[in-house]
Amino acid sequence: RINSDRLWDSIMEMAKIGPGIAGGNNRQTVTDEDGEGRHLFKRWCDAAGLEMGVDEMGTMFARREGTDPSLPPVYVGSHLDTQPTGGKYDGVLGVLGGLEVVRSLNDLGIKTRHPIVVTNWTNEEGARFAPAMMASGVFAGVLDQADVYQHVDKDGKKFGEELERIGWKGTEKVGDRKIHAFFELHIEQGPILEDEGIDIGVVTHGQGLKWLQVTLTGKEAHTGSTPMPKRRNAGLGMARVIELVHEIAMDYQPDAVGAVGHMQAYPNSRNIIAGRTVFTIDIRSPEKEVLDAMDGRIREGIDTICDALDIKYEIEQVGHFDPVTFDKNCVKAIRDAAERLGYSHRNIVSGAGHDACWINRVAPTAMVMCPCVDGLSHNEAEEITKEWASAGADVLFHAVVETAGI
Amino acid sequence: RINSDRLWDSIMEMAKIGPGIAGGNNRQTVTDEDGEGRHLFKRWCDAAGLEMGVDEMGTMFARREGTDPSLPPVYVGSHLDTQPTGGKYDGVLGVLGGLEVVRSLNDLGIKTRHPIVVTNWTNEEGARFAPAMMASGVFAGVLDQADVYQHVDKDGKKFGEELERIGWKGTEKVGDRKIHAFFELHIEQGPILEDEGIDIGVVTHGQGLKWLQVTLTGKEAHTGSTPMPKRRNAGLGMARVIELVHEIAMDYQPDAVGAVGHMQAYPNSRNIIAGRTVFTIDIRSPEKEVLDAMDGRIREGIDTICDALDIKYEIEQVGHFDPVTFDKNCVKAIRDAAERLGYSHRNIVSGAGHDACWINRVAPTAMVMCPCVDGLSHNEAEEITKEWASAGADVLFHAVVETAGI
Ligand SMILES: NC(=O)NCCC(=O)O
Ligand SMILES: NC(=O)NCCC(=O)O
Repeated sequence: RINSDRLWDSIMEMAKIGPGIAGGNNRQTVTDEDGEGRHLFKRWCDAAGLEMGVDEMGTMFARREGTDPSLPPVYVGSHLDTQPTGGKYDGVLGVLGGLEVVRSLNDLGIKTRHPIVVTNWTNEEGARFAPAMMASGVFAGVLDQADVYQHVDKDGKKFGEELERIGWKGTEKVGDRKIHAFFELHIEQGPILEDEGIDIGVVTHGQGLKWLQVTLTGKEAHTGSTPMPKRRNAGLGMARVIELVHEIAMDYQPDAVGAVGHMQAYPNSRNIIAGRTVFTIDIRSPEKEVLDAMDGRIREGIDTICDALDIKYEIEQVGHFDPVTFDKNCVKAIRDAAERLGYSHRNIVSGAGHDACWINRVAPTAMVMCPCVDGLSHNEAEEITKEWASAGADVLFHAVVETAGI
Repeated sequence: RINSDRLWDSIMEMAKIGPGIAGGNNRQTVTDEDGEGRHLFKRWCDAAGLEMGVDEMGTMFARREGTDPSLPPVYVGSHLDTQPTGGKYDGVLGVLGGLEVVRSLNDLGIKTRHPIVVTNWTNEEGARFAPAMMASGVFAGVLDQADVYQHVDKDGKKFGEELERIGWKGTEKVGDRKIHAFFELHIEQGPILEDEGIDIGVVTHGQGLKWLQVTLTGKEAHTGSTPMPKRRNAGLGMARVIELVHEIAMDYQPDAVGAVGHMQAYPNSRNIIAGRTVFTIDIRSPEKEVLDAMDGRIREGIDTICDALDIKYEIEQVGHFDPVTFDKNCVKAIRDAAERLGYSHRNIVSGAGHDACWINRVAPTAMVMCPCVDGLSHNEAEEITKEWASAGADVLFHAVVETAGI
């Protein structure tokens, strides 16, 4: 079993970097705080005798040599970036859980046949720069590196320039690594495991996602002196689309979810009818057909809404992944480990996107989940217990070691 | 008749200060640009031989002496501040129209019995700091000066400190002046005059207004992994309230309008269900009973919406004025002037709020309106013709001179 005190202490140490305002973290990707978090992680990797590689997307690969260095490594990790109002565990548990795996192997003096590489994928959250899981997406060949370098944040700063600015743009070509298997430990971010009192989620599938960025263009006008029938209100249009997305998601739930979390009105003045609104629709389902059906109904609905309000629309897909089925053998390795260790477990579908979802396209991949309090995530109040964390890391340890071979 | 070239040139000169991005202006109250606009206006007043007074709210009073200096002056003016994406005429026409009245009197060598004071009221727009018509509201004793000094903009800057920073906080106590009458020339900001091909709007009434700032508090959570029934979505709540306000306004129109132009979601991340939204409802009607009824229905509706979504709400009234009936004699002076000058005219109700609406509570007041293209205002594309502007200023000139006496 892993050293649960050490794992917990490391998580708490990392949480000191980029603190939030309510007990959580604001360590958004390629900010100064992200840079600082990376340095701390590197120091820990150095101390554990790992060799660090950094690729052109800033992803960090800390390698523990295997007894047969010619074999492709087993990868383990997640991400250290957070939401603007994120928790201490989302992503961090997976990276530091991976570090704990190699620290425990060091303690026990165990050598594995395959090398093990602890990984910190850049910009998993997609909060500052869309899309989410950006670096793993480039690694898997799904996203284009030159393109995502140009993506801008709310202040117009470019991802590529910010990565360079914080000093973490590496030289290694992205996606060049051979991966024997990839394992990611993550908090569930949903309520199922806690509600059912289960220690371990064996993740068999991941939901698919679409992010549709919508721009509505009406006409700025005075809120007081413009007659109701003359208005071309982009704010009202946005409100109707938010309701539409909710209704469609309710029609398909529990097999789908949908919401709008990002929304902006222009010029955003109390006495100006919004002339333009920009917002992002987030829809998800474990069924590709459902996701496509929702997408179709949303586009139709937007057309109808805009027609009635005499406003124009543009829809840009700024994020997308299909539902994922994880690798049978990797999933089995996780289930067997939980069984062997005596942890209660059940199969589970990931509601969130993860780097594992992209890496699954280029290498055998699976995920371990542990419960989180109230299923709450993307909230500074995100919480887990030390016991949940260490159970997850124990299972990760066994699955990794089994797959890497002794 | 006034000098229409000079009036037009002055408007175009003022428009160079704080230019917008689409041909209009961004000269928001107590910004550096506002300060610069005030200096230009003062230079013009100096050149016209006027004596400038500035009160503690920054309102500028440029006095042309009367033959009987002991008589209370006739005031004429409006405001030089603009919306963030405002037009070149909203407010400016009234201030520079007032200046043109005294310039024309100078040209003609006419002395009036009552002094004439050209006025630039601070923060009429209410865009940067709520409420609108702030300085005239303090002047009329409806708003509290110490209170509005503390009002903050989006960046947390205080009105009082910003006024001081730009160097336009005067020493004169606010509201100490005796006003014989006040006349304000303004563009209509609505479509009626242009649609009917009429030169002059004789403003008999003004709509009442309420600004309700609403804060909804739900719970930040992951858009992907949070089941639909577990959500407490403050973004969805805001959408429903925006629709509610629209529906209620539609029920009462043409005797009412309503919209939400200002709206903000927190933390405003694509994959976080909004935990909090803040937005301002703007409702107006020329009938006090209608305004009150709308207010009541909106509050009830918000309660029902929030109950269904398990979110909390707070409602703060950040702006309010009752419908206004302008002074019979002043209105008659305007109508008579239009008649005498041979301009077509009709009675009209102001859809927007104006400084005249507050000053009407402490002195006989009325307004002149001229058409604007497409009724468009609070938009950089706001447009009027030189002929419309000069017809309005001609009527203003005659009404002022008649009231000030020769
Ligand atoms: N795990 C996680 O929160 N990832 C962010 C991407 C997403 O929105 O699912
Ligand atoms: N005239 C004008 O646009 N005033 C701003 C205050 C309002 O919203 O009516």
